[in-house]
Amino acid sequence: MSLTFDSTPRADGFFMPAEFAPHAGCWMLWPQRPDNWRLGGKPAQKAFAAVATAIAQFEPVTMGVNANQYSNARQMLPPHIRVVEISNNDSWMRDCGPTFVADGKGRVRGVDWVFNAWGGLYNGLYFPWDLDDAVAQKVLEMEQVDRYKAPLVLEGGSIHVDGEGTCITTEECLLSLGRNPELPKHRIESFLKEYLNVEKVLWVPRGVFHDETTGHVDNILCYLRPGVVALNWTDDKSDPQYDRSEEAYDYLMSQTDAKGRRLEIHKIRQPNPILIQPEEAEGVDAVDGTLPRQAGDRMAASYINFYLCNGGAVIPSFGDPHDAEALERLQQLLPDRKVVSVPAREILLGGGNIHCITQQQPKG
Amino acid sequence: MSLTFDSTPRADGFFMPAEFAPHAGCWMLWPQRPDNWRLGGKPAQKAFAAVATAIAQFEPVTMGVNANQYSNARQMLPPHIRVVEISNNDSWMRDCGPTFVADGKGRVRGVDWVFNAWGGLYNGLYFPWDLDDAVAQKVLEMEQVDRYKAPLVLEGGSIHVDGEGTCITTEECLLSLGRNPELPKHRIESFLKEYLNVEKVLWVPRGVFHDETTGHVDNILCYLRPGVVALNWTDDKSDPQYDRSEEAYDYLMSQTDAKGRRLEIHKIRQPNPILIQPEEAEGVDAVDGTLPRQAGDRMAASYINFYLCNGGAVIPSFGDPHDAEALERLQQLLPDRKVVSVPAREILLGGGNIHCITQQQPKG
Repeated sequence: MSLTFDSTPRADGFFMPAEFAPHAGCWMLWPQRPDNWRLGGKPAQKAFAAVATAIAQFEPVTMGVNANQYSNARQMLPPHIRVVEISNNDSWMRDCGPTFVADGKGRVRGVDWVFNAWGGLYNGLYFPWDLDDAVAQKVLEMEQVDRYKAPLVLEGGSIHVDGEGTCITTEECLLSLGRNPELPKHRIESFLKEYLNVEKVLWVPRGVFHDETTGHVDNILCYLRPGVVALNWTDDKSDPQYDRSEEAYDYLMSQTDAKGRRLEIHKIRQPNPILIQPEEAEGVDAVDGTLPRQAGDRMAASYINFYLCNGGAVIPSFGDPHDAEALERLQQLLPDRKVVSVPAREILLGGGNIHCITQQQPKG
Repeated sequence: MSLTFDSTPRADGFFMPAEFAPHAGCWMLWPQRPDNWRLGGKPAQKAFAAVATAIAQFEPVTMGVNANQYSNARQMLPPHIRVVEISNNDSWMRDCGPTFVADGKGRVRGVDWVFNAWGGLYNGLYFPWDLDDAVAQKVLEMEQVDRYKAPLVLEGGSIHVDGEGTCITTEECLLSLGRNPELPKHRIESFLKEYLNVEKVLWVPRGVFHDETTGHVDNILCYLRPGVVALNWTDDKSDPQYDRSEEAYDYLMSQTDAKGRRLEIHKIRQPNPILIQPEEAEGVDAVDGTLPRQAGDRMAASYINFYLCNGGAVIPSFGDPHDAEALERLQQLLPDRKVVSVPAREILLGGGNIHCITQQQPKG
């Protein structure tokens, strides 16, 4: 039985575990829409399959697919990856999937946020998004996990928690006009405290330059462990990312977390600017109402957009000179994990990266 | 991991447990197609929900639905029934679902037969049937149960086993031209022996009169326990069912099962002839290639088409004078089970009954 509760995780003693806590497994969705993924999604499908295969070294992976891609996904993925039908508008499980919460005594539930394609009719990226909005419920129902229906527009990529009472988010995203324009900041903060069961919310001003998610936190910084953060960085003052990363750094250095700790911040240098190439833009269908992919547009590439899994971390590479440095730095910073990189340009072309396409289910 | 084996259950020591053996749960599919179910499927959906609810008293039930019916099914079904997306052309889980096999030591696998809508291009009931043919794989994949892909056109409703080496089927169905016309009877029997792991196949000549499945065995007779069979019956010699039931009775009385036992046969009187009413026929879309529902057509009504579940049996009722007799007889014959009846006319109107829309998954 999968029940839906009117209460909140905080009221019931459930909280969102950090991504670095043990997982039962990982959920993903399969890319296909030709107005977002070039060449009918075939290059992206290869990239997603590589990510799924990399994660499956560390923990079980389930891939949700639309019915008309079931057979293709089943054939492109190795047999130890579970494939199930979960209808979707696009493939961003981080953002439309459930946020799992736990009571620390073996019970797991899920928070089902409202999803509106990163901005609804104001500045959302496609229309409609009804199937995406139902993904969280379907995941929880399939696993017979009980559900909290949260009356807040929110994507999983816009929050990071340390599992010890702190949430980091961005003002750029959570205060955007396309999500909950009727709610003042303190009300949104109250929702985060209730549904994630945190004591303190840290509000970084902005995310990564030209990020179509309106500045998701998961592309600019992440927790490596409690009190320790990795931050997307550039030393080039002429880069529009410079001010964004510097203000995040300055803000976080001025704060303490829920436990009263100052944060330790590790800068991870971003790749050189990556632009959409003409032949890449040409491979995408033009559809009214879907964000176009235009040649020359800069993409929001960041090594921070990685996935922590049981004993591992799966990070993106871009064929960039900074790839090796990022891999080395993150391996140093995560000494108890095996850090592996997966080529991710084809995921980036769709508007996100490895963290955006994954969602951890904590161990019960 | 869900693997697909080239071997057979018999080669690996797996066999099909009888329906009266303990179940892990029950699988169903949700009705909707308007060219088979009247009034957009709404009356049938209520009937399926009642069947699911009745079975769920005894064992867990999972309902597979097409994406566009997910929300409606979730709302029409009680919360303790699991709803998952499994795309389908129609809702006959008995016939397109997997046949589960067990090794008696806790391991369960599934047989995935070829499904061709009860006769393919020769005399199948609709076109296409591609989604139905993929249902068995999707059920097994979702549960991470390993699979045998059987190279034989067969529906689960065309076989009954006693779990002790005997299978009963009908010549009318398994030797029909729409299934495996290239295979002689002895070859089909070999497949049954290999994939169900039985020693003996009993070939009843025909099924129920005017049964559009070409005479599925599960509408005319079933096992109550090893050596004991219930048989659909009429004493009216002018009824076209009379000869069919009598020849089944005579055949079975002349046979022994795999253990050398003579069969004990209990006759269950059928309801009076049930005809499609004009207002029922009017509610069904006319679609070329789908079997039409015509006013005045006799339906293949039988109390035998019931489902045995853990500690229970869910049998159909038709608002017929024989309903009470069937319920009473079956309760006498199944003294260790609670026998409950569910109104099933709306299921019958779609061409089958309670056994046809259910599929047991044995306990592992």
